[in-house]
Amino acid sequence: MTGTSPRPGTDLVGVLGTGTALPGEPIGNEEIGERFGADPRWVERFIGTRTRHLGVDLASGKVTHTLVDLATEAAAAALDDAGMAPADVDVVVLATASPEHLMPASVNLVADRLGIHQVPTFQLQSGCAGAMQALDVAHRAIGDANPVALVVGADSCAKHLVLDHDFARLPASELVNYVIFGDGAGAALLGAGETSGALLGPVRNRFVGLGRDPGQVIRWFGAADRDSTDQPVDEDYKAIESGVPGLAADMVAELLAETGWPAATVTHLLPPQLGGRMTDLITAGLTERFGLTASAINCVADTGNNGNALPLLQLHRLVADLGPGSRALGVAVESSKWIRTGFALESV
Amino acid sequence: MTGTSPRPGTDLVGVLGTGTALPGEPIGNEEIGERFGADPRWVERFIGTRTRHLGVDLASGKVTHTLVDLATEAAAAALDDAGMAPADVDVVVLATASPEHLMPASVNLVADRLGIHQVPTFQLQSGCAGAMQALDVAHRAIGDANPVALVVGADSCAKHLVLDHDFARLPASELVNYVIFGDGAGAALLGAGETSGALLGPVRNRFVGLGRDPGQVIRWFGAADRDSTDQPVDEDYKAIESGVPGLAADMVAELLAETGWPAATVTHLLPPQLGGRMTDLITAGLTERFGLTASAINCVADTGNNGNALPLLQLHRLVADLGPGSRALGVAVESSKWIRTGFALESV
Repeated sequence: MTGTSPRPGTDLVGVLGTGTALPGEPIGNEEIGERFGADPRWVERFIGTRTRHLGVDLASGKVTHTLVDLATEAAAAALDDAGMAPADVDVVVLATASPEHLMPASVNLVADRLGIHQVPTFQLQSGCAGAMQALDVAHRAIGDANPVALVVGADSCAKHLVLDHDFARLPASELVNYVIFGDGAGAALLGAGETSGALLGPVRNRFVGLGRDPGQVIRWFGAADRDSTDQPVDEDYKAIESGVPGLAADMVAELLAETGWPAATVTHLLPPQLGGRMTDLITAGLTERFGLTASAINCVADTGNNGNALPLLQLHRLVADLGPGSRALGVAVESSKWIRTGFALESV
Repeated sequence: MTGTSPRPGTDLVGVLGTGTALPGEPIGNEEIGERFGADPRWVERFIGTRTRHLGVDLASGKVTHTLVDLATEAAAAALDDAGMAPADVDVVVLATASPEHLMPASVNLVADRLGIHQVPTFQLQSGCAGAMQALDVAHRAIGDANPVALVVGADSCAKHLVLDHDFARLPASELVNYVIFGDGAGAALLGAGETSGALLGPVRNRFVGLGRDPGQVIRWFGAADRDSTDQPVDEDYKAIESGVPGLAADMVAELLAETGWPAATVTHLLPPQLGGRMTDLITAGLTERFGLTASAINCVADTGNNGNALPLLQLHRLVADLGPGSRALGVAVESSKWIRTGFALESV
C-alpha cells in the first residue's frame, strides 16, 4: 500500500471507519429544565445546548449505560463501518476522564467484550484532549507489521450527577453542570500505510498551562475519603470562556503552519466543543482571525458535552461530509490544566 | 549520535537518568502489625514484605505526600541524575492507578511543578503494567527532532486506606492490603539516538485476559455514589498467585525470542513485584524454566507494593548494577485484567 503521500514527509494514517454511541433518547431542555429547576430558555440561549444523552435514568437514578457499554458500542460500530473484525485490530487506545474503575483499566474490559486479544492496550486519563492524545498514541503505535488501531473516546457523568439535590438552592454555576454535560462515546479505526481516503496527520498535543490555575477540577473519592467535603466537580466557566479561544487559535495556527495549507483552502473546521453558544463564538473568532471559509462540524448542542467522545463524534460527522480534496482541521482545548490539541485530515 | 545498533533493526533508546521518591521513613512489620492488628511474623513469612513507605501519617491519617508530590520528586531526581533541566524534556508520560484527581490529569501538575512547558504530556491509567506502557509510549514518542522523554510511574494508596476500621474483625484477605501496599514513585529519562550506555528496547505490552475474571478490582466514587456499598478494593490473591507466574514466563519467552539472547547470557532479571515471597517464587520458577543465571533486581520487600513505581524503582536499582555487556529482562504482570508487559535492556 505504498505510494506518494499527498504531503511528503508527513506521517499519515487512514481513517478506515468510525462509530458512535449515545445512550437513550435525546433529552430536551424542557425535560432537563423541569428535572433540575432550570429555565429551558436560559439553557438554550446562555449555554446553547438543545439536547443531550445520559446513561442514567433521571427518574430512578439507575445507570442504564456504563462507560464500558458506551465505549464498546461505539467501537463495534466503527468495526462494522470499516468492514473489519475484532481480530483485525492490532492496538486499542481508550481516552476517558471517567473510567469505570481505577483497575482494571476500562480499555481491557472493552477489548474483552469485543473479543480483541493478545494486543497492546492503552488508556489515557484526560478531559476532552484525551481523544486527540489517543489518536496520537495510536498513530505512533501502528506500522507495517501492525497496521490497525482502534481508538475510543468516552465519558459518563453518572458518578458525578447527584440527582437528589435541592436544585432550587443550587447556584447557577453548579446548575450549569447538570444541563451542559452528556454521556457517550466515539470510535475510529486507523490504518497505517493508507494513501487514499480520509488521511489523518499530524496529531498535536501540547500542555500550555504552566503557572495557570486549573479551569476545571474533578475529584474522585476512595473508601478513606468518601465523606470528603471537597467540591467534587469544580468548573471555572469564566476562565474557560476567556482561555479557550486563544488556545484554539494557537492550535489552528500551528496546524496551518505544519500542513502548509492556505487558510482559505480549509474546507472543514472541527472546533472545541464546550456548549453550543461558546463553540459558535469560538468558531466565529477563528473564522475571522484566519479568514476561514470552512464548514463547522459540531455535535455538542445535540449530544451534550461528553468529553472524550466529542472529537470522535465530530470525526464521525466529518467523514460523512468529506469530498475529493477536503481539508479539515480539528481542535480540542482542555481547560483543566490548559492542553491544546488538534489534527489535520484530508481526503485523497 | 548515529551508529550501529548492537541489535540492528531494534529501536533502542538510552536510559539517561533515573530517580525515585519514597515518602517518609521505612515502616517495619512490628509497627505496621501493631497499627493494623497483624502478626509481624505472618507479614514477613506469608507476604515477604519487610518495610514499606506510606505518604500518610498512620497516627493522624493526614496525607504527608500526595501522588503529585511523589511523581514530581522522582522526576526531579531523574533530571538531576541525568544532568538535565526541565527545558530539555520533549515529552512527559506518567502512569498511575491512583491519579490525584480525575482532572486535571496529574501529569500536567507534575509538569507544572517542574517547569516543563509546551510539550506533549500523556497519563496512562493502569496498575503496575502502566509503567511499562509509559516506557512504550515514550519510546515511540521521541525521535531526532524531540529526543528526550520523562517517564514516571507512581501510586498512592491514601484514598483507599481506611485507618479507623475495627482491624481485629477484618478478614485476612483484606488485612493483606494494609500490609502489602506502599506509596512511591520512580522516574526515568529516555533519549533517542543513543548508541552507548544503558539501551532500552523493545518494550512489550499485551492484554491477555480475554474471558478471564479480573484478579483485582479497584473502584472510585463520585458525589453521586459516595455511599456505595460496593467493595472499593477487591483483590483475588489466589487468582493472582496462580495466574502471574505463567504470564511472567510467557513474557520472558517473548523477550528472549525478540532479542535472540541465549537465556544463559541474561545477567539481570527484574521480576514482577507482588510481595517478597511471591516474587521470590516467581523468580525461582523463571530461573529453573529458562536456565537463567541472572541476578534478580527487586524492591518490593523494602518499598512495599507501590504499583506503577515498582518497574521504575527496579530500573533505578538495575542501572546502578550494570556493567559492560549486561543484559536485563524486566517483567511486570498486572492481574487486574491480565496484562503482561516487559522490556529488554543492555549495557553497551
